[in-house]
Amino acid sequence: MVFTAQQIADFLKGTVIGNPDVKVSDLSKIEDGKPGTLTFLSNPKYAPYLYNTQASIVLVNNDFEPEEKINATLIKVADAYQSLAMLLDLVEQSKPRKKGISPLACVAATAQIGKDVYIAPLAFVGDNAIVNNNAQIYPHAYVGDNATIGENSVLFAGATVYDGCVVGNRCILHAGCVIGSDGFGFAPQADGSYKKIPQIGNVVIEDDVEIGANTTLDCATMGSSLVRRGVKLDNLVHLAHNVEVGENTAIAAQCGVAGSTKIGKQCILAGQVGLVGHISVADGSIFGAQSGINTSIKEANQTWLGSPANPVAKTRRIYAVTRNLPDLQNEIIALKKEMAELKEKLIANS
Amino acid sequence: MVFTAQQIADFLKGTVIGNPDVKVSDLSKIEDGKPGTLTFLSNPKYAPYLYNTQASIVLVNNDFEPEEKINATLIKVADAYQSLAMLLDLVEQSKPRKKGISPLACVAATAQIGKDVYIAPLAFVGDNAIVNNNAQIYPHAYVGDNATIGENSVLFAGATVYDGCVVGNRCILHAGCVIGSDGFGFAPQADGSYKKIPQIGNVVIEDDVEIGANTTLDCATMGSSLVRRGVKLDNLVHLAHNVEVGENTAIAAQCGVAGSTKIGKQCILAGQVGLVGHISVADGSIFGAQSGINTSIKEANQTWLGSPANPVAKTRRIYAVTRNLPDLQNEIIALKKEMAELKEKLIANS
Amino acid sequence: MVFTAQQIADFLKGTVIGNPDVKVSDLSKIEDGKPGTLTFLSNPKYAPYLYNTQASIVLVNNDFEPEEKINATLIKVADAYQSLAMLLDLVEQSKPRKKGISPLACVAATAQIGKDVYIAPLAFVGDNAIVNNNAQIYPHAYVGDNATIGENSVLFAGATVYDGCVVGNRCILHAGCVIGSDGFGFAPQADGSYKKIPQIGNVVIEDDVEIGANTTLDCATMGSSLVRRGVKLDNLVHLAHNVEVGENTAIAAQCGVAGSTKIGKQCILAGQVGLVGHISVADGSIFGAQSGINTSIKEANQTWLGSPANPVAKTRRIYAVTRNLPDLQNEIIALKKEMAELKEKLIANS
Repeated sequence: MVFTAQQIADFLKGTVIGNPDVKVSDLSKIEDGKPGTLTFLSNPKYAPYLYNTQASIVLVNNDFEPEEKINATLIKVADAYQSLAMLLDLVEQSKPRKKGISPLACVAATAQIGKDVYIAPLAFVGDNAIVNNNAQIYPHAYVGDNATIGENSVLFAGATVYDGCVVGNRCILHAGCVIGSDGFGFAPQADGSYKKIPQIGNVVIEDDVEIGANTTLDCATMGSSLVRRGVKLDNLVHLAHNVEVGENTAIAAQCGVAGSTKIGKQCILAGQVGLVGHISVADGSIFGAQSGINTSIKEANQTWLGSPANPVAKTRRIYAVTRNLPDLQNEIIALKKEMAELKEKLIANS
Repeated sequence: MVFTAQQIADFLKGTVIGNPDVKVSDLSKIEDGKPGTLTFLSNPKYAPYLYNTQASIVLVNNDFEPEEKINATLIKVADAYQSLAMLLDLVEQSKPRKKGISPLACVAATAQIGKDVYIAPLAFVGDNAIVNNNAQIYPHAYVGDNATIGENSVLFAGATVYDGCVVGNRCILHAGCVIGSDGFGFAPQADGSYKKIPQIGNVVIEDDVEIGANTTLDCATMGSSLVRRGVKLDNLVHLAHNVEVGENTAIAAQCGVAGSTKIGKQCILAGQVGLVGHISVADGSIFGAQSGINTSIKEANQTWLGSPANPVAKTRRIYAVTRNLPDLQNEIIALKKEMAELKEKLIANS
Repeated sequence: MVFTAQQIADFLKGTVIGNPDVKVSDLSKIEDGKPGTLTFLSNPKYAPYLYNTQASIVLVNNDFEPEEKINATLIKVADAYQSLAMLLDLVEQSKPRKKGISPLACVAATAQIGKDVYIAPLAFVGDNAIVNNNAQIYPHAYVGDNATIGENSVLFAGATVYDGCVVGNRCILHAGCVIGSDGFGFAPQADGSYKKIPQIGNVVIEDDVEIGANTTLDCATMGSSLVRRGVKLDNLVHLAHNVEVGENTAIAAQCGVAGSTKIGKQCILAGQVGLVGHISVADGSIFGAQSGINTSIKEANQTWLGSPANPVAKTRRIYAVTRNLPDLQNEIIALKKEMAELKEKLIANS
């Protein structure tokens, strides 16, 4: 499909700066844009690429003022990233959607399957499982007995939902994620061995949740581990048993949350963050990459960094001094020497 | 099934405090206990919930003395957590056990299959593999050629055991774990490329081991990577080639152990700990979350924390001073100023 | 197969020290070598085992000079590790290679399948996918629509390649790895929720790349995430969308690289390292285990350590002072006290 700058600007409610008739048929990144493609500028870090890009059209924010001549036609919009997202949506929606239950799928006779569902060859759906309307179950995905998959949700290849777990509507489970594996619970015995505590609970995932590839969510010991509406989990994240994650919290790759910890709404965890068990985290908390949180966070909307974590401004000061520690040590050594000399002199003088 | 407090107390050899005739039919967490359920108090952090819980029965330790009036009936036992485990076992054992070899499973003609085995649809068992009595192989699980699965062991959906690896008796392998992938061994070449060192060894897992979801264990370059009896590995753990983990060691989620490192018995690694390769760790060592261990640990039964790790008491002192570093720097600046003033004064006086 | 020390030395172009007629039929590790086996000494840490090993033959470097009597026959070679690799190659190549397309595989009619390919039972190959000559697709592996698998590449059990991704020649994808899952891209909305940014790009993996078990590589938002020729990724690594990894870079287990970051050629990342997004890393950079990199690295061939990272020599000095911080604090307290006393004395004297 080919569109002119004017047609795209009309669709996005934006303004054309330059040739409104220039045509594009594809999207590109600003650093390797080709003629006939549209790209975007959102992160100012990439602005230098704008002046040399070969892309025909660039989406920019309304407040963007070029510092040099630009060959491309600009389309100014309120939010270039959101506008790009709208265009990407169009591309995504133009892809054909898979449908139908493959005769090579393995679907239990007792499972309840909704309308317009895709169940791929080699997918497995267990006894009394429920797969609701428009859900898509890719090859090698697994829906355990008594599990529920909501409307319009997708389980990509090899996504695994253990018995009795519940996945809401419009959820996306990427390849290899595991929902409902046993929590890590053992009672130490007198002989040094561990006795397994059976984990009889489940995982409940509400609507509009995305779960990254190879991320693992353990079921509750009793009751439910809970992932609230709108939560986004990146790849290789670990949520232990009885964890609860509040609405619209985003957790980046390789974070780990230990058992029974409750994370509030609208929090952001950058990559490789760890939270100990049995704490609670206030709404709107933000944790910098590789932070370690070992105590409850009671004040909302604060940003934390470090392991162990402190408020970010404090951590930055600590980091600045830490970088300087060898010099600081030398200053202390010098001070001690001066002090000794001074004392000696005083004794000599007295 | 419905039980009275007295019936449960008799089963657990405990003492009823309150109404022995109150009935329960389910288990619950103390913070959301409902009437007709039994809950427990083990971690003192959760004691405040006890006074408001709607649960009908609460298991507590013998030494627990309430500070306020409690509506629930208490059952006092030697160890509330272990007693809960016994009740959870009852629930677990009441679930029907899967059996039989599905015609939709793919089992090599040369494989040896024991009695009362479950091999699910879409599971794969390779040539000359051995699956012993009562083992359970879930959908999409993979048992490679010449691999062995012990009695009463379970491979959940998508668990993968490479050729020639050995899994003991009563082991649990959670979904997506990988046993026996190649170790990360490469010989650097003159042109900057790497030549793969073939990894011809295997992984041997002894009895009563639990392996978490998406955990990966590499095979040995030669010989065996070794996981001893009673070891418990959480989710997303990585054990490299030729690693050895001693009896009853527990490793929490997202820990990584580099090649050829030997971990002793009865150790505990909290989450996200990393150990470098070619070191050995004494029995009973405990590592705090996010610790980094870069040298052998020779003294047994010590607790370590930090990256790089130090004995925990020392690390706590270091952390306390570190939090205080900006102030400390100011004190040094102040001291330098005072020192300069003092010297000036002395010169003026002399 | 049985070989004499002389035969092996001839094959490796090495020199026999000791009995050239001693025979071996297997390989072993130096710490548990048995008679009739050949072992090797490369890491000097293992030298003490040499004097007691029961192995019949030991490969050593030409410059190795024993400090005690050795029972084993030595074969001196230019590089013991590389020579071992040649022997391991022989063992590896003696294993039978799997071939043929199983009738229990699920291969789309529109897929293009090369010669001498292995497609296992329960493997999936999608529409218009290309599987080139000699490629091997193990059980439960998944090749999405329009994906390409190069010649002589192997997808082990459960390896997943999303639609449209490209895997080069002679690549090894270990069990459970995921190639092409959606990047973690969301536009925040006014109501606090996130709108998904569709990820319409792919992953391109060049030739001679190895991908570890359960490692995840996200597709690009637009264009391609790129893994260059000769890259080696260990287990549980995460590469986010639009990441680019340069030729012959090796990344150890559990490292994470955030979106759009470009890593140069010949870099080495030790375990559990994290890199923030939108930075670039110069060729030949080396990062110590658990490092955190939050800014671009411009100078090539430097070694970095710590979180946040500094040049390794500086970090080692910082670590040395950090270990000493409690003492340093005491010295400052002592200095303050001395200073106060001195001042008091001066006032008294004046």
